[in-house]
Amino acid sequence: MQIEERIQAAMLTHFDEVISAGTPPSLRAAMQHALFPGGARIRPQLYMAVAMVSGEDLPSLTDAGAVALELMHCASLVHDDMPCFDDAQLRRGKTTVHVEFSEPLALLTGDALIVMAYQVLLNQTTKKRLSHSHALRVLEMMNVLSQGVGVPHGIVAGQAWECESKVDLWKYQRAKTGSLFTAATCMGAVAAGANPAPWLELGESLGDAYQIADDIRDVIGHVELIGKPVGQDIEHGRPSAAQVLGLEGANAEFKRLIDNAAKSVPDCAGRDILRAMIFKESERLVPQREYQHYLEVSKQKQQQSELAA
Amino acid sequence: MQIEERIQAAMLTHFDEVISAGTPPSLRAAMQHALFPGGARIRPQLYMAVAMVSGEDLPSLTDAGAVALELMHCASLVHDDMPCFDDAQLRRGKTTVHVEFSEPLALLTGDALIVMAYQVLLNQTTKKRLSHSHALRVLEMMNVLSQGVGVPHGIVAGQAWECESKVDLWKYQRAKTGSLFTAATCMGAVAAGANPAPWLELGESLGDAYQIADDIRDVIGHVELIGKPVGQDIEHGRPSAAQVLGLEGANAEFKRLIDNAAKSVPDCAGRDILRAMIFKESERLVPQREYQHYLEVSKQKQQQSELAA
Repeated sequence: MQIEERIQAAMLTHFDEVISAGTPPSLRAAMQHALFPGGARIRPQLYMAVAMVSGEDLPSLTDAGAVALELMHCASLVHDDMPCFDDAQLRRGKTTVHVEFSEPLALLTGDALIVMAYQVLLNQTTKKRLSHSHALRVLEMMNVLSQGVGVPHGIVAGQAWECESKVDLWKYQRAKTGSLFTAATCMGAVAAGANPAPWLELGESLGDAYQIADDIRDVIGHVELIGKPVGQDIEHGRPSAAQVLGLEGANAEFKRLIDNAAKSVPDCAGRDILRAMIFKESERLVPQREYQHYLEVSKQKQQQSELAA
Repeated sequence: MQIEERIQAAMLTHFDEVISAGTPPSLRAAMQHALFPGGARIRPQLYMAVAMVSGEDLPSLTDAGAVALELMHCASLVHDDMPCFDDAQLRRGKTTVHVEFSEPLALLTGDALIVMAYQVLLNQTTKKRLSHSHALRVLEMMNVLSQGVGVPHGIVAGQAWECESKVDLWKYQRAKTGSLFTAATCMGAVAAGANPAPWLELGESLGDAYQIADDIRDVIGHVELIGKPVGQDIEHGRPSAAQVLGLEGANAEFKRLIDNAAKSVPDCAGRDILRAMIFKESERLVPQREYQHYLEVSKQKQQQSELAA
């Protein structure tokens, strides 16, 4: 089974397992809306690739970790889209949860998804004869995941940096986006019973690359391409690498980070496959043809306005 | 040390342990505002009393559980107070988090507190030689806590019932308030390595009693007494036992539930102390003098309006 299909199957199974008939129908529907159909599922894919090349021996635990990670990501999207943050109407090409349902339900959906992430992992520990190493692995997975989400350096803290008057751009972006990427690579290793430390750099590089890609797409992107409104950073006055480094500087930095990510993959059986995945993903994140096209058009416009002046 | 002091000390210690210097200052301040000074801390008190009479053998784990429970409760208060729910200005006699800080920070504070509840328990498992029984206990505590908060029957689901057009009053209240009380009694037993099942009824009875007490106070209360605006149920069109049963019916049901709670305490060394605690708490929840006074005044008013008609 391809990684994408495996993640989709796990998402469906765990959704039905946790959200039983007793759940309030609107909350259930709102949670489903937030989770299906998904986006690129890039974090669980990265996580699962690391677990597989690290020699996963408990596939159902690997699956649960992928779901937990994606639940946390979707929870943050639902809350970020709410009127008090981005006030976004569209996400993944469809209406956001608070628009489709209501603000109270969007708030509760995010909360329920955060708790559900732990429930999915805890459900892996309820069998009669749980081995000590299995128990420790689940605890460590929850630990890594919590660090990626909560205080002091997780995605929630990253969002909170937006509320500060003085912000260190890299610290902010590292927390806002990068922390769930490092959680993905490290938790993938832990799920397979491997040491997470050698996987930290891959998560950091990809997280930084992903954030810069987001900034670049926010400048060059079309709403059809990324499924959400563009120009959001400028509109919301958020710090952006594309503004600080300039578009060409940001693209050069993006390429450097992708190269660094590929180089950082530790020596393991699936090293080449994982590297190929990284380069393929990089092209999805910032299609170089789109980028070049935008650059040429904006240079032409600049020349025209210089001639006219 | 008294239970109240022990809980306060644990809250302070775990706050400093999780929220290190790297946390965004406003988020840290907002989380502090949400947690200190606390309300009655009734849930962690109940939890700790059960752990103590069940023969707690790992006091630092008991402490962590009390903090985790209170963090979940405070998270739900912060989110419930937000404009899209109760739009409350006051909580515990001071301004609510979104009023004091901002809506985005209130949203993030709730999220961070939910994750922190797990972090506090997970921090109990990071020592070098963690025994298997200790690991299993922490996992089971997180399991009980998650059920009390998430879907299908936790407090988040309880809140979501408010968004449904058809609501079963008891199902709604059992989830909205009761689920964290059953989590408190059951988690207290688990923390002490005891069987949680005999403690379920105590949690259910007290949860129901607490919710009815809230409804009664919403009718008879003064804002000075309960630290938040009264008449909220009617204003928000929320189902309330005081409306369904009438005030006197609700008070009779409250007393029956308290008696039932006291009777349900399983045979254990501290049984009498725990029962005395329950009766003392019942008087705090619905001061019978206040209740009688309100009843007399409203009967006099009714007689006067009948005479005038």
